[in-house]
Amino acid sequence: MEIDELVEIERIKRLKYAYLRCIDQKDFGGLTELFAPDATAAYSGGRYVYEGRDAIVRFIETNMGRTTMHSSHRVHHPEIDVDGDEATGTWALEDTIVDSEWDFVLQGAAFYEDRYVRSGNRWLISHTGYRRTYEYLVPTAGMPGFALTASWWATDGQSSLEVQ
Amino acid sequence: MEIDELVEIERIKRLKYAYLRCIDQKDFGGLTELFAPDATAAYSGGRYVYEGRDAIVRFIETNMGRTTMHSSHRVHHPEIDVDGDEATGTWALEDTIVDSEWDFVLQGAAFYEDRYVRSGNRWLISHTGYRRTYEYLVPTAGMPGFALTASWWATDGQSSLEVQ
Amino acid sequence: MEIDELVEIERIKRLKYAYLRCIDQKDFGGLTELFAPDATAAYSGGRYVYEGRDAIVRFIETNMGRTTMHSSHRVHHPEIDVDGDEATGTWALEDTIVDSEWDFVLQGAAFYEDRYVRSGNRWLISHTGYRRTYEYLVPTAGMPGFALTASWWATDGQSSLEVQ
Repeated sequence: MEIDELVEIERIKRLKYAYLRCIDQKDFGGLTELFAPDATAAYSGGRYVYEGRDAIVRFIETNMGRTTMHSSHRVHHPEIDVDGDEATGTWALEDTIVDSEWDFVLQGAAFYEDRYVRSGNRWLISHTGYRRTYEYLVPTAGMPGFALTASWWATDGQSSLEVQ
Repeated sequence: MEIDELVEIERIKRLKYAYLRCIDQKDFGGLTELFAPDATAAYSGGRYVYEGRDAIVRFIETNMGRTTMHSSHRVHHPEIDVDGDEATGTWALEDTIVDSEWDFVLQGAAFYEDRYVRSGNRWLISHTGYRRTYEYLVPTAGMPGFALTASWWATDGQSSLEVQ
Repeated sequence: MEIDELVEIERIKRLKYAYLRCIDQKDFGGLTELFAPDATAAYSGGRYVYEGRDAIVRFIETNMGRTTMHSSHRVHHPEIDVDGDEATGTWALEDTIVDSEWDFVLQGAAFYEDRYVRSGNRWLISHTGYRRTYEYLVPTAGMPGFALTASWWATDGQSSLEVQ
């Protein structure tokens, strides 16, 4: 690893962070700009497969567009290798969904295997996919006393809890 | 992004990591030293607002000082931009509170928008604030069989679980 | 901190990420290669102590080898200092275990204090240990409606949930 490579690695990390921020803030326009036009995706161990950035973003927006579906996708442990204008990246994912319409909480963990491509001065996602370590779901009816105390959309991101 | 900027970005990341370590280890003296004297804070979508580092730390210590309130604040996805002696940073937060006195578990996710300032050879927090994606609370009475098996304070950080 | 140090810090981060990836993917052969032969470990506030990489890996494999024990160990907030061929690192850990044989979910948080050593061109773990902030366990019987919807081993990492 050379010093120059660190700058490219940092830029690829930020590409991935922007991807996840756009998903969790439901900025699907911003999300589209992070993919190469011919990007491919193979989510959930290859169960959900899409070709082309429009198909990928349509899938995400269709399934995650409701503002009652609060999601937190966090990636960790980047192992990124750059080879000229291409790069590969392994990431560890943890994700939570708190759905206040369908009344469940979902928790998952997975490993991403991504590919990136440099287009002019920018890095773009050319392939993304993950395989689940686990995923589990609990209906909130199964958690007596469950209370949603803040929501980006329903409460302007403010908590209803009192502080001293 | 230039190579020199990477060093400053790494130092700002460490400032943020120290901030969260001091909170979760309840080192409020150490926490104070990480803020500029005139720092401001706007937590929870602007619902909890404080001016001056003493007011900020007092708020945190008042609400998180009990050693029966076990917290884990973890930040991810740093998007940090440095401009001379100032910098901005976006982070994705995940936090958990396990309160063994008030008997609840709280889980939250948020996005931080911070500002930093260089003072001599050190970076300090000049503004911090976050907006919640979600926050939810479950009383431990609502989780039959719940058991706290380790505590930094009550068990010297050791688990009571048996291993082979 | 100098620019050259950033490359070593990035390499040490990747060592730690590989360590956790090997644990969560149950690659115990790969795990062994990441330790110095005389490495030591002091997990869970010093309650589980081992000397030598073989003893460390045997402990991990014995307790985490079952493919019904799904684990996610994620580390955050690296504060790494390099001094020649040695280095120290503080990390914030979050870990989850979803055990589909013994029917519980465990959630924990901790702080690692590690030491690393450079051997030729590679960094190795010479000491690892953590102290728990908290750890708690909930039997899945205490979460009515709980469903494991994906498993690296039982479902090839695919979710059973339907998407649109």
